[in-house]
Amino acid sequence: MTAVRNVLFVMCDQLRRDHVSCYGSARVPTPNIDRLARRGVRFDHAYVQSGVCGPARMSFYTGRYVSSHGATWNRVPLSVGEHTLGDYLLTAGRKATLAGKTHVTPDSEGIERLGIDVESQRSALLREGGFTVLDRYDGHTPPGPESGYADFLRARGYSSGDPWSDYVIGVNDGGRFASGWRMRNVHLPSRVAEPHSETAYMTDVALAWIRAQGDTPWVLHLSYVKPHWPYVAPAPFHAMFRDADLGPVLHGVQDGSADEHPVVRAYREHDECLSFRDEAVARHVRPAYMGLIAQLDAHVGRVLDALAEMGRLGDTLMVFTSDHGEFMGDRGLGEKELFYDEIVRVPLIVCDPDPRADATRGSLETHFVEGIDVVPTILDALDIAPSKHRIEGRSLLPLTRRTLHGDAPVAWRDCIYSELDYGFRRARKVLRRGVRECRGTMVRSDAWKYVHWEGFRPQLFDLGVDPQELVDLGGDARYGAERASMRERLFDWMATQKRRPTISDEEVASHTDNHRERGIDIGIW
Amino acid sequence: MTAVRNVLFVMCDQLRRDHVSCYGSARVPTPNIDRLARRGVRFDHAYVQSGVCGPARMSFYTGRYVSSHGATWNRVPLSVGEHTLGDYLLTAGRKATLAGKTHVTPDSEGIERLGIDVESQRSALLREGGFTVLDRYDGHTPPGPESGYADFLRARGYSSGDPWSDYVIGVNDGGRFASGWRMRNVHLPSRVAEPHSETAYMTDVALAWIRAQGDTPWVLHLSYVKPHWPYVAPAPFHAMFRDADLGPVLHGVQDGSADEHPVVRAYREHDECLSFRDEAVARHVRPAYMGLIAQLDAHVGRVLDALAEMGRLGDTLMVFTSDHGEFMGDRGLGEKELFYDEIVRVPLIVCDPDPRADATRGSLETHFVEGIDVVPTILDALDIAPSKHRIEGRSLLPLTRRTLHGDAPVAWRDCIYSELDYGFRRARKVLRRGVRECRGTMVRSDAWKYVHWEGFRPQLFDLGVDPQELVDLGGDARYGAERASMRERLFDWMATQKRRPTISDEEVASHTDNHRERGIDIGIW
Repeated sequence: MTAVRNVLFVMCDQLRRDHVSCYGSARVPTPNIDRLARRGVRFDHAYVQSGVCGPARMSFYTGRYVSSHGATWNRVPLSVGEHTLGDYLLTAGRKATLAGKTHVTPDSEGIERLGIDVESQRSALLREGGFTVLDRYDGHTPPGPESGYADFLRARGYSSGDPWSDYVIGVNDGGRFASGWRMRNVHLPSRVAEPHSETAYMTDVALAWIRAQGDTPWVLHLSYVKPHWPYVAPAPFHAMFRDADLGPVLHGVQDGSADEHPVVRAYREHDECLSFRDEAVARHVRPAYMGLIAQLDAHVGRVLDALAEMGRLGDTLMVFTSDHGEFMGDRGLGEKELFYDEIVRVPLIVCDPDPRADATRGSLETHFVEGIDVVPTILDALDIAPSKHRIEGRSLLPLTRRTLHGDAPVAWRDCIYSELDYGFRRARKVLRRGVRECRGTMVRSDAWKYVHWEGFRPQLFDLGVDPQELVDLGGDARYGAERASMRERLFDWMATQKRRPTISDEEVASHTDNHRERGIDIGIW
Repeated sequence: MTAVRNVLFVMCDQLRRDHVSCYGSARVPTPNIDRLARRGVRFDHAYVQSGVCGPARMSFYTGRYVSSHGATWNRVPLSVGEHTLGDYLLTAGRKATLAGKTHVTPDSEGIERLGIDVESQRSALLREGGFTVLDRYDGHTPPGPESGYADFLRARGYSSGDPWSDYVIGVNDGGRFASGWRMRNVHLPSRVAEPHSETAYMTDVALAWIRAQGDTPWVLHLSYVKPHWPYVAPAPFHAMFRDADLGPVLHGVQDGSADEHPVVRAYREHDECLSFRDEAVARHVRPAYMGLIAQLDAHVGRVLDALAEMGRLGDTLMVFTSDHGEFMGDRGLGEKELFYDEIVRVPLIVCDPDPRADATRGSLETHFVEGIDVVPTILDALDIAPSKHRIEGRSLLPLTRRTLHGDAPVAWRDCIYSELDYGFRRARKVLRRGVRECRGTMVRSDAWKYVHWEGFRPQLFDLGVDPQELVDLGGDARYGAERASMRERLFDWMATQKRRPTISDEEVASHTDNHRERGIDIGIW
């Protein structure tokens, strides 16, 4: 029996792995995330299933690869046919409660087609990706009625029909209002006090709710919208870092050159890349981004303190991660999506309170893990059987619950997969592709990263000699064998994705070769 | 504007292409199917998406490959999330009516999870794969309450709680009852008169219904359960053919040998193969199978005569096909499933009444077509826009509506794909495979047929020199380049299957690069 009664699944939005100090970065001190890491296992090779919010999160919530759950980009609805963490918990009489962001787009067409009563609880769950909503707020647009944040702000004197645009992401520039949408303004502090910021608000909501549960077991997804843009930090975090703290901005040897990959070159025409190709922009924006991370870290500290005070550290599984990273000017790029480690490799910390995990506390785990592993990990911790025919990830508890020395090595995956659909992006038009011809698929092994791009040459990086992925060998004639080998891994992956979602493995096994028991006497002389 | 108002989609069950005379076979004269072919186009390279009823039919009904719709074998439910012909017709206020077999297994778990009222019309449609049921009868088990067949039989004097087992597939063997489940008995006639046989009954049901429609447009799926086993034919069809008519039984050079493919060898341990490896069994059963085909042909003639008499030939699109073929002892195998042409290559005739199709009437069309093409063909004929983001097949009307000489060639596919999941079969146990490790995928080009088998070497046939697929080159070192090339085609196919089912191509196109219109000013300086 496990000691786990509660689950706190914390997600950050657009938090770069190398901006977290327990991942070896000197850029931003994150003492509280580091505290979390000391209580659990930090995974060194944790990758998301897509470098963009929507599909990455749908993989976190379904335990399935993007081409399995089908929500290939932001704004693509999650099919009503997909099962999520909330569904699996429901089979055991549990709920997945949400405070914050999911980026779920409801499958309204599917709900209507199936005649599901839009007022029903089932419809509400389907529209929210299986979560029971305490407070949903996706960030980067004004909070809607699913969130109490706008009212919270107005109650604190931020009088406006849209206090988010006017205060949270607003700044005072020499006495005049200016918007944080403009990156030139993000050196200035938000017009809300720190306790009224997005990160503080959602932490308050979560802690009040956890407190109200008393000894009733719970599963909470606390999902922050920061440090995602708009990059406006409240004081004093807006000014915590300075240009001198930043270190170099990474440039690749092929950046913008004719032999750079065509898809990467097309991404350079996106607004954020046009801005960030000027290194001065990166150096202007980074301190705000880093300040938002420092603020987030402070609230992680509040969460830890509160759980300790409530006596919940001993029976709560904590998962801390991010949906993807951020270029922040590295490679002359802005934003995310492409398959570089700045984007698809994320922090992932699992604090497993079970005594069997004591030996791994504070350790760095190098096995390859993926966003799809979070759902099966949570189910495993709560002793809920996973649906092996649907869930493509695997529980991480065999990695947390082992003695570090002397036990048999855990049989594990040797590759990681991530996908991108850039059909919604300007790059599609630049490259004159049809909307269904914009797929990229990454496979990363110990030594190589290979990206298959529909209609273009692949990308290939030799991680052993080029861990920063500066030299794309995808068109280099000397690496044909390595490309073929990685392509074979992609083939095997595609050929074994889970494509039979409506019947369990156990049912298939029990029905194997049993037609005669059912009165069907095929082929008997 | 098309002249098509009605659609008659006729499917046979387990009808081998080379047992139809307009496909060049001398085995069984099928003058009525040949009449149909003279009115339309017969496709020479028509393949099904799986060599077994359930998955093949779900591809016919959804327009999607098996690994897309997920009903990978018989008894695997069709997910409530899948859209079928009936759904697409419904968007235009039309219905797909069913008389006969679909092999749809309802996704009861999905229906329950979504809280869909089991008494609702939507639930009824979902449980029937989108068809409105006039009479559903899947064959090979006694007809249930969805069919009027049992009552029909009892009303005609076949007194029994189960007149199907006692009469339809029963025979009199020297005054004693014997079951047609036993192949040794199939030289004897059914205990029902021919007009009371399965094929006659379902033809009656269909014709009465069509007649009752008057001038109201309709779409009917007339889906026969024959010549599928039990191979009991009514008189006089049971005795129409004799051993002398049969010709040779095909044997392959590797049949049962150590270098035969392991999956094929494992299939030899299935009951039907154990029986049919004795050529005498094949020669005993084939006349009954052929008689069932001759009977079916006669009823196709009744349908054609009735449509002519009702004046419906000029406004009815007719599609005639089979869900897969049958080994009938060839290669020492029985039944179906494996990727030989006896199984996956089927007859497909499309009679398009539109005057633009006049030039192609009676022609043989050699382009590669697939079962997934039927739904888009029907929608095209009825001027209903297809859902391009879901449907993986394409309309065949560009092939029927062209002048045979002088017009530009139609851009078309150059490969065909078919899939098998043998997780339910004895072969899985013989090969000691897990239930999710039993996938085969075929790609057939003009010159080659290649089958990828998870966990085993591939199969490869050089169709140019070995059209009967007698010599499997899958393990022959001289053909590495050909295997690699075919494997590349499979890679490209898997990488481009339609994996974004919840948003249309048009929506993606209209949303491309439009975030600034939505107030999201990413990355602006």
